[in-house]
Amino acid sequence: MKSFINEHFLLQTESAKRLYHEYAEEMPIIDYHCHLSPQEISEDRQFENLTQIWLNGDHYKWRALRAAGVEEQYITGNANDWEKFIKWAKTTPLTLRNPLFHWTMLELNRPFGIRNMFLNESTAEEIWNRCNDMLAQKSFSARGIMRQMNVRVVCTTDDPVDPLEYHKKIAADNQNGSFDIRVLPTFRPDRILPINWDFSTEVHRQGYRDYLEKLGKSADVCIHDFSSLRDAILKRHQYFHENGCRLSDHGFELFRWTQQEPESFHEKTIQKLLRGESVSDREALELSSLLLMEIGRINAEKGWVMQLHIGAMRNNSSRLFRQLGPDAGSDSMVDGAFAKSLSRFFDCLDQQKKLPRTIVYNLNPSANYLLASLIANFNDGSIPGKMQFGSGWWFLDQKKGMEDQIETLSNMGLLSLFVGMLTDSRSFLSYTRHEYFRRILCNILGSEMENGLLPNDFEWIGNMVRDISFRNAQRYFRF
Amino acid sequence: MKSFINEHFLLQTESAKRLYHEYAEEMPIIDYHCHLSPQEISEDRQFENLTQIWLNGDHYKWRALRAAGVEEQYITGNANDWEKFIKWAKTTPLTLRNPLFHWTMLELNRPFGIRNMFLNESTAEEIWNRCNDMLAQKSFSARGIMRQMNVRVVCTTDDPVDPLEYHKKIAADNQNGSFDIRVLPTFRPDRILPINWDFSTEVHRQGYRDYLEKLGKSADVCIHDFSSLRDAILKRHQYFHENGCRLSDHGFELFRWTQQEPESFHEKTIQKLLRGESVSDREALELSSLLLMEIGRINAEKGWVMQLHIGAMRNNSSRLFRQLGPDAGSDSMVDGAFAKSLSRFFDCLDQQKKLPRTIVYNLNPSANYLLASLIANFNDGSIPGKMQFGSGWWFLDQKKGMEDQIETLSNMGLLSLFVGMLTDSRSFLSYTRHEYFRRILCNILGSEMENGLLPNDFEWIGNMVRDISFRNAQRYFRF
Amino acid sequence: MKSFINEHFLLQTESAKRLYHEYAEEMPIIDYHCHLSPQEISEDRQFENLTQIWLNGDHYKWRALRAAGVEEQYITGNANDWEKFIKWAKTTPLTLRNPLFHWTMLELNRPFGIRNMFLNESTAEEIWNRCNDMLAQKSFSARGIMRQMNVRVVCTTDDPVDPLEYHKKIAADNQNGSFDIRVLPTFRPDRILPINWDFSTEVHRQGYRDYLEKLGKSADVCIHDFSSLRDAILKRHQYFHENGCRLSDHGFELFRWTQQEPESFHEKTIQKLLRGESVSDREALELSSLLLMEIGRINAEKGWVMQLHIGAMRNNSSRLFRQLGPDAGSDSMVDGAFAKSLSRFFDCLDQQKKLPRTIVYNLNPSANYLLASLIANFNDGSIPGKMQFGSGWWFLDQKKGMEDQIETLSNMGLLSLFVGMLTDSRSFLSYTRHEYFRRILCNILGSEMENGLLPNDFEWIGNMVRDISFRNAQRYFRF
Repeated sequence: MKSFINEHFLLQTESAKRLYHEYAEEMPIIDYHCHLSPQEISEDRQFENLTQIWLNGDHYKWRALRAAGVEEQYITGNANDWEKFIKWAKTTPLTLRNPLFHWTMLELNRPFGIRNMFLNESTAEEIWNRCNDMLAQKSFSARGIMRQMNVRVVCTTDDPVDPLEYHKKIAADNQNGSFDIRVLPTFRPDRILPINWDFSTEVHRQGYRDYLEKLGKSADVCIHDFSSLRDAILKRHQYFHENGCRLSDHGFELFRWTQQEPESFHEKTIQKLLRGESVSDREALELSSLLLMEIGRINAEKGWVMQLHIGAMRNNSSRLFRQLGPDAGSDSMVDGAFAKSLSRFFDCLDQQKKLPRTIVYNLNPSANYLLASLIANFNDGSIPGKMQFGSGWWFLDQKKGMEDQIETLSNMGLLSLFVGMLTDSRSFLSYTRHEYFRRILCNILGSEMENGLLPNDFEWIGNMVRDISFRNAQRYFRF
Repeated sequence: MKSFINEHFLLQTESAKRLYHEYAEEMPIIDYHCHLSPQEISEDRQFENLTQIWLNGDHYKWRALRAAGVEEQYITGNANDWEKFIKWAKTTPLTLRNPLFHWTMLELNRPFGIRNMFLNESTAEEIWNRCNDMLAQKSFSARGIMRQMNVRVVCTTDDPVDPLEYHKKIAADNQNGSFDIRVLPTFRPDRILPINWDFSTEVHRQGYRDYLEKLGKSADVCIHDFSSLRDAILKRHQYFHENGCRLSDHGFELFRWTQQEPESFHEKTIQKLLRGESVSDREALELSSLLLMEIGRINAEKGWVMQLHIGAMRNNSSRLFRQLGPDAGSDSMVDGAFAKSLSRFFDCLDQQKKLPRTIVYNLNPSANYLLASLIANFNDGSIPGKMQFGSGWWFLDQKKGMEDQIETLSNMGLLSLFVGMLTDSRSFLSYTRHEYFRRILCNILGSEMENGLLPNDFEWIGNMVRDISFRNAQRYFRF
Repeated sequence: MKSFINEHFLLQTESAKRLYHEYAEEMPIIDYHCHLSPQEISEDRQFENLTQIWLNGDHYKWRALRAAGVEEQYITGNANDWEKFIKWAKTTPLTLRNPLFHWTMLELNRPFGIRNMFLNESTAEEIWNRCNDMLAQKSFSARGIMRQMNVRVVCTTDDPVDPLEYHKKIAADNQNGSFDIRVLPTFRPDRILPINWDFSTEVHRQGYRDYLEKLGKSADVCIHDFSSLRDAILKRHQYFHENGCRLSDHGFELFRWTQQEPESFHEKTIQKLLRGESVSDREALELSSLLLMEIGRINAEKGWVMQLHIGAMRNNSSRLFRQLGPDAGSDSMVDGAFAKSLSRFFDCLDQQKKLPRTIVYNLNPSANYLLASLIANFNDGSIPGKMQFGSGWWFLDQKKGMEDQIETLSNMGLLSLFVGMLTDSRSFLSYTRHEYFRRILCNILGSEMENGLLPNDFEWIGNMVRDISFRNAQRYFRF
C-alpha cells in the first residue's frame, strides 16, 4: 500500500494547494533554533545507516518504543543498528495519529524519496537497504541533506564556554565558497544561572564551581566575585557575537524571576558558591534574576534576540537519568503560575529601555493564551513583531499543536508578523517539519479563504505565507 | 476588492442562514454590560471623525498598532486625527485572523454601509471622508447609532460615588418620550475593596482615605468605623437601585476570598485605613471578603444580578501606566488557583439563602471548564439559569473564544438558558459584536442540525436562538 | 418528530460508517470501572419505572434540573416517581448540546427501542408507559439489560472493608452457569488515606477511628500501630484478589504526595489518630503518601492495575451535602499544580521496580496535555501501553471531552494501545456510553482516512478500532 504523502498532503482545499505550491513550497529555510552538532556539519558527517541518523538521539521515538513495550536494549542499549531499526519498524504502525507517524513518512519521502510504502515489519528491510545506499552518497552527507532541503541559515545551541571551533571552520568554508549555508551559534547560558543547580547536593555544588572555573578560563577572567562573573559573561557574549551569534536561549521549568536586592546581597551568594557552599532557593533565585537581567540588557544593546523556553519538567525518571543522562525521553510539562514573574521581568527591562526582541516558547498548552497575551503587553512600536509567541515546541510540535499556536497567536497578536517554524532537532532529517508547518498554515488560510473568513486575495494572503515561511525571520533576525 | 462581509458572513450552512435571518437578525439588543459614557449619551455626542469615535480609547487597536511597529505618537500621542487614522489603515491588513480584522469590517459595514472595499492605505482617504460625512449627520450621533443598531437597554459601569446625573437626564428623556432606549447604571464598587489598593505606597493609602471620604459624602454618612462604612454602601446601593440599577460588577485579578473573622478584627483594619496606615495583605483580604459578602447579600435582597470578572492582570507596563494610566493596552491574563475561594464565597452566601443571580466572566480560557462546572454547583432550582457562565470576555471576545464559551457552557450547563452577548465596549461602534456572536451561534447550531447532532426542528432551535439573542436577558435581568 | 438517533448517528463519512458497523459495533463490553450495586446485580433487580432506574441517583440529571429552575422536591425530594419524571421530560428539551440530550436519546433507543420521538412534556406519558411495561419484563432486569448490551465483564467500586458477599454470589452464578457476565470488585481505599479526612472536626476524628476499627475487623487484625495497619491492608488486598479483584482505584482532589519520613514519624501520626487526636496536614500527607506507596507496591506485585482519579472538588454546596450527603451533584473541578508530586510518586515506585500498570483519569481538561505527557515518562518497555491516559471522566464524558482525550492521547502517546471506554455509572442504562465513544472514535478515524491523514486501510484501522473497543482492555487487565 502506498504512503499517502503526496504533493497535496494536508492541503484540503484548492486555495490551500495554491497557497502552498505557489507561495510556500519554494521558500528557503532559516532554522533559527536547533540542536544539531556543529562538529558533524563541519566534518560533513556521512551516516552509516538509518539507525545512526534517525533513531540514535531521538527521544521522541524512544518514548514511543517504550510505550509499545520494547525493551531498553533495543532503544538505547547494546542491540545492533539493524535490531534497533526493526523494532522501530514494528512500532511505527502503532503510532497512527501520533506526530511520529506523519514525521516518519515525511522524512522517508524527503530526502529519501520513499513514498510507495509505509514503514512496517514487512517493508523494513527494503527501506533499510534503499536508505542506507543513499546515505553512502555524498548528497546525503550532513551538508548534502541540508543543501537538498534548501537551508539558508542554521542556529545551533551552545554553552557560553564553547570555543566555537567548528562554527569557525564552517565560517571559513562559507568564506572560501565551499559551503554556502551559514551555521551560527546561539548563546545558551543555562548553566550560569544558579536556579538550574541543586545546591543541596555536593555534586552540584562542585559542578557549579567547576563550571565557573571553565567559564572564567574561556573568558580569560579569574572569577572571584560578582563583578568578575559579569565580566566573564560579557566577554563570552562578545566572543559569540564576533562569531556570528545573534540569539540567546534560556530554558526554564516554571519561569521564576524576582526584583533584585542590592548588589551586596548577590556578592554574598556568589562568595558562598565559589567556596562550594550551599545557598538558599531565594539566594539562587535572586542571583539568577540579576544575571538574567544582565544578559537581557546586553542582548538589547547588541541587537540580539532573546529566546525563552518555558514549562519543561525534565528527567522525571531517575532510573533513565542514571542510565542515560538528560534528554533520555523522560521529560514532560510542568504546571504552576508564572505570569507575574515573567511580566515583571519584561517590565523591568522595558523601563530601562533594555528589552530585546524576544521569543517565548511555551510547553504546557494551557498557558498558550496567557503567554501570548502577556508578551504582547511589551510591544513598544520600535519594530514590527518585537515580542513573538514562538512556534509549537517539543510536545506541541504536531498538527494540533501548530494549529493551536497559530490560532492563539492570531487571536492575541498579529500572525502576519510571525517569524515561523524551526526544527529544534538533533537530527539532519527533521527539515520536513518546516514543510509540515507550511502545509498546515496554508491549509488553515486556504480553508478560511474559501469559507469567507479571509479575503479571497492570493497576493495578499500569499505574501503573508511567504513572510511567515521565510521573510519575517530574515528581517527579524537580521541575517 | 470587495469586503466579504455580506448577508451570509459566517453562516456556512443553509440551516445556519435560516436560523440567523429568520430568528436572530431582527432581535433587539440588550447590552447589559458596557463602558459607554452616560454623558455622551445624555448630550447625544456628535463625533467629528472616525479617529474620535473609533480609535481614541480603543486599547485593542493600540496593541495591534504597537505590535505592528507604530510609534506611540501615532497611537495615543500628539499626532493629528488623520495621521492616526492612516496608521491604523496601514496596520489593518496585518490584522488578518485577529478579531480586529472582522470587527473593522463589521463596523464599517454597520452603521456606515462600507462593504465595497477593505480598509488599507489606498482606501483610507475615501473611507475617512465617507464616514466623516455620515458622522456629521444626526442619525450618526451617539443616540442615532444606538437607534440604528436596535438597542433597547444599555447598562453602563459606574462607581458607587457617581451622582448618576446623566442617567437621570436620560431617564427624563425616556419619560418625556424624546429617547426610548433605557440607559441604566451598574454598581461597580471595586474601589471600596481594600484588596484593590496597594497599601505599601503612600499614594494608595491616601487614595483609599480620599475615596472613603468621597463615598461618605455621596451617601451623606460620616465613615468612621465599619458600621458607618456598611451604611454608606447600603445607601449608595439603594440610590443606584432608585435610578434603575439592577446589576453590580466586580473585577478581580485572581479571585480571592476567605471566611471571615469576627467583626472586631475588621474594625481594627478599617481604623488603620481611616488613619492612612498600612494593613497586611491578610487584613485587606479579610475586609474585602466581608464587604463582598455584604454586597452579595444586598444584591440578593434587592433582586440584582452580581457580575464577577475574573482573571485580568492589569497595567503590566509601568511605562505605559505612567504615560497613559489604566486601560492603556498593557493588560493580559493571570494564572493561579482560585476555585476553592470562589466556591466558598458562593457556598457562604447560599447557606444564608443570600446568593444572588450571578454571572461569572472568565479571562484565562484554561479556567473555562473549571469555572463553568463550579458555578453550576450553586443552581438551586429557584430560577432557570440562575448561575451564568458569561460570554467570551475581552481577549476571548473573538470567534474562537465565543465558540469555546458556547462549547464549554453547552457541556457544563444549559446553553438554552444563556443570557447571551454584551459589548463590554467604550465605543458606540461596537454593537456589531452582537451580530458577530449571533452569526457564530447560528453557524454552530445550523451545522449541527445538518450533521444530525441536533434536531432538525427550526421552531425548537429557532426559539433557542431568540432566547439567547434577547429574551433570556430580558427575563433574567427583569428589564 | 423522530429522534435522530439512527444507525449512522455521529458517523459523518462513509469510512466512519464502515469502521463502526464492521469493526466496532459488535464488540462486547468490558466495563472496567463503574459504580453499579453488586447487590442489585446479585438479586437481579427488576425496576418499577423509569424514575427508579434512570433518575434516582443520577446527579448529572439533578444538576440540569436545578439549572432549569426545578425545585428540589421534584429532584431528590418527596414528589412521586411520575411527578419527578414529568419534570425531567420538561427539562430535556432545554438540554440541547449538553451530553444529557444525546445520552437520553441513546438510552431510550437502547434498550427501549424508542426512536420515533423526542422526550418532552407531550411525549412523556407514552414513553413512561412503554418503558415501564418493558421494565416489568425479565429481559429488562439488571442482568437482562446487561445481557442485551453485550457486557462481558464489569468492575464495581468497593471499600476494602466490604465483605464482597454479592460478588461471591454472582461468582457462584458464573460457576453454575446461570449468569455468564463476570462482576469483579475494585479495591478503593480512599477512606484509609488520612488526607481524605478533616481531622479538625470531631466527627472526622471519630470517623477515622471507627473506620480503622472496621478495617481491622474485616481483616481480623487488631490495628494498634503502623505495622498492623499495613497488615490489615495487605490482608484485605489479598481477600479482594481472591475474589477476582484486579484493579485498585484512588480519588484525589489535587494529587498530593511527598517523599517519606522514617517510619517512626508515621508511627507517631498513627498513634495520634488511634487516640482520636488531630494531626497536622503534613502528618496526614506523609502518612497518606506512605500508604499509597504500599498499595502501589502490592498492586505491582499482584499484577493489578492502579487507577488514579485526579481533580474533583467535591461537595461544594454545604446545603446539599447536609441534605443529601455526597454525590448530590455539587461537585466540580479543582485547579492548582500537582505535576511534581505525581511525577515523584511514579518515580519512587519505578526506582523500586514496583510501579504497577496505571491509568490516570483527569477532570480539569486544562491538565490533559500535562498529564498525558507526564505519565508517558514512566513507560518502561515491560508491556505495551503500561501507563494509560484514561478516557474522558465525569464532566469530560461527552463528545468534545472524548474527542479531546483521543486527541491528547494521540499526540502524547499511542492511541493504538488505549484500553478504551468505561461507564463510571451508577445506572444500568449507561452502557450506550460505550456506543457513543465508539461512534466518536470511528468518526474521527474515518474522517482522517478520507482526508488523507490516515492510511485508507480498513484492516489496519479496523483492527485498531477493535483493539480500543475491547481487545486492549482484555489484554491489559488480563481478564
